[in-house]
Amino acid sequence: MQNFEFKNPTKILFGKGQIENLGKEIPKGAKVLMLYGGGSIKKNGVYEQVKQGLNGFEYLEFSGIPANPEYEVLMQALKIIKEENITFLLAVGGGSVIDGTKFLSSAALYTGTEPWDILRKSIRTEKGMPFGAVLTLPATGSEMNSGAVITRAETQEKLGMGGPGLFPEFSILDPQVVASIPKRQLANGITDAFTHVLEQYMTYPVQAYLQDRFAESILQTLIEIAPRVIKDPADYEAAANFMWCCTMALNGLIQKGVPGDWAIHAMGHELTALYGIDHARTLAVIAPSHYRYFLKSKKEKLAQYGARVWGVKGATTEEIAKAAIAKTEDFFHSLDINTKLSEYTDQYQGTAEKIAKRFTDRSWMGLGEHKTLTPSDAEKIVEMSY
Amino acid sequence: MQNFEFKNPTKILFGKGQIENLGKEIPKGAKVLMLYGGGSIKKNGVYEQVKQGLNGFEYLEFSGIPANPEYEVLMQALKIIKEENITFLLAVGGGSVIDGTKFLSSAALYTGTEPWDILRKSIRTEKGMPFGAVLTLPATGSEMNSGAVITRAETQEKLGMGGPGLFPEFSILDPQVVASIPKRQLANGITDAFTHVLEQYMTYPVQAYLQDRFAESILQTLIEIAPRVIKDPADYEAAANFMWCCTMALNGLIQKGVPGDWAIHAMGHELTALYGIDHARTLAVIAPSHYRYFLKSKKEKLAQYGARVWGVKGATTEEIAKAAIAKTEDFFHSLDINTKLSEYTDQYQGTAEKIAKRFTDRSWMGLGEHKTLTPSDAEKIVEMSY
Repeated sequence: MQNFEFKNPTKILFGKGQIENLGKEIPKGAKVLMLYGGGSIKKNGVYEQVKQGLNGFEYLEFSGIPANPEYEVLMQALKIIKEENITFLLAVGGGSVIDGTKFLSSAALYTGTEPWDILRKSIRTEKGMPFGAVLTLPATGSEMNSGAVITRAETQEKLGMGGPGLFPEFSILDPQVVASIPKRQLANGITDAFTHVLEQYMTYPVQAYLQDRFAESILQTLIEIAPRVIKDPADYEAAANFMWCCTMALNGLIQKGVPGDWAIHAMGHELTALYGIDHARTLAVIAPSHYRYFLKSKKEKLAQYGARVWGVKGATTEEIAKAAIAKTEDFFHSLDINTKLSEYTDQYQGTAEKIAKRFTDRSWMGLGEHKTLTPSDAEKIVEMSY
Repeated sequence: MQNFEFKNPTKILFGKGQIENLGKEIPKGAKVLMLYGGGSIKKNGVYEQVKQGLNGFEYLEFSGIPANPEYEVLMQALKIIKEENITFLLAVGGGSVIDGTKFLSSAALYTGTEPWDILRKSIRTEKGMPFGAVLTLPATGSEMNSGAVITRAETQEKLGMGGPGLFPEFSILDPQVVASIPKRQLANGITDAFTHVLEQYMTYPVQAYLQDRFAESILQTLIEIAPRVIKDPADYEAAANFMWCCTMALNGLIQKGVPGDWAIHAMGHELTALYGIDHARTLAVIAPSHYRYFLKSKKEKLAQYGARVWGVKGATTEEIAKAAIAKTEDFFHSLDINTKLSEYTDQYQGTAEKIAKRFTDRSWMGLGEHKTLTPSDAEKIVEMSY
């Protein structure tokens, strides 16, 4: 087991009707900016519940935070925060709204002239404006971690930020919100959480037995509840497990003491940038090829996953490892998630070279758990994903 | 899944050599009281490492906190805290030292006249004097939770306390400390953590699939590493998993969203009070009888545990459940932990009636996940444990 530090101070309020406790969690006398996306919260009743919870607080609303939170849009919100002397931010939405709110939390207290520097210069946020979240879309885990990804259309950049000041003070998770989420987004959420776990697990064994089993627990639970969630998102118990799995998949716990990969995300991000494919679907395209390409170095963990999570039996480690990859593909297919790039775009030819070039053009740090994945490896993996 | 709230702000520093980071975690300018027990830390090198870490801080030492932290002893430490204007407490030890420090954290800021009232009147600690811990004995989980149990010899009382103000600011977990722990205490620690998990898991199914699997993960890992830890406590990887399991067994995570039992602890406490049997061993005495007695209401979870944790196969749920109880006994025996009261005392006759009477004499709230366990049930369970 590797050495680690772990601290996660976010308070979770989980379950039916928890939105009604919102008011108790916001500091008395706070002036609140409520942030949300395209208005789906007005259709599923969350908007009304949140307004009820904000009773007694002075607050303003800012809507229209897009799916990949845009710097330009967020800068409009920042203007309001400053002009109106906002003291508390409330994100009501999925990962994009929460990530956007994290940027605002940091930018509100940032003393430099250009808030984009927080991202471009990787400035760690030690202290941000306090904020909370009401989660409406389980997937990214942003509700219980301190990271965010922000997009700047103008410069075609998509950059990450983080720091101990960016944990939500609280997040409210009411699984009843799952009932109104479209099937496509449910499938994306399951795939996203599943791949989050794989990125932290599918590396090489370091005798971190408990972390391995926690990771497998999330994978097994996602596999167990996926058909129920897809069939009937109003199935509360399935939705509750789905929601808690997504949070636990990326709140820091399972990554502690073990190596992490995250190369699938790096390659997937490029597919989103090039073709606008949903983030989760790019992961499902890359993951099987990535694991086949690195079968040799990952086969122990692949076989452990195959045996424990899928109950695969086989004569050799390699046999079980290969079967585990096939099972993973089958799982994505069962969610109506395609796993080949050519199923998303006709213009897939040349993508591998393009991505390799994009990687080469950057100051290349190496990817994966050994930091040895090269642009040429990426080229081969993407080509295998056609 | 039941509704829940979860917040655990303790920072964990885990791994080899982490004690050297101690100084970075204590607020600058703090005046520290270092608290420890009987001096085992002077034999295993921890004392020197901690003193090194406290370099540059003004600090005092208070030693001699006994195995069940005594009110009278703690009151002497409280006097020092007040007279010397201590601002930060540092527990260096196992659950008893950390629990004692939690009492002091609360008492230091308590404005009433009699600090025992915090326990007797169950006063929740919203804010305590900040404290940290260097863990030297994995078992109780106190290093990452906000509860404590304090004993008052004078009145034969052993009472619990807690509150959000009693989470350690940080806890340092260096698994290298396990190497010098006597076998008896290692076996106790494994049994304690194992039973902590059982108390939160062995109730009835509520479709909390992820919590169930996390609980099973801790049990499976304890079973996996127990023989290695007992055989060679210097086996770092086994020790690391042991330590992290103990912390995760009682840091709040696995109890969220599920019913809890805790009747085994209630009955076990009485055996410690009557005969001075080690806490963990009383749990091993009570648990098998408790599960046999409540086989009907617990058989679904017992069978799930039997199948998933022990790989038991059987024709019926009841058959698997019974085999699971036997496996649990075998596990305790493998640690040289006796599971019958008569193996600890010759004077076991009449114990069941005594405990039932003690329970009856108190304002009885009912025990177990349904709060329906009566003194008469306890009598039968204890009798089955002879």
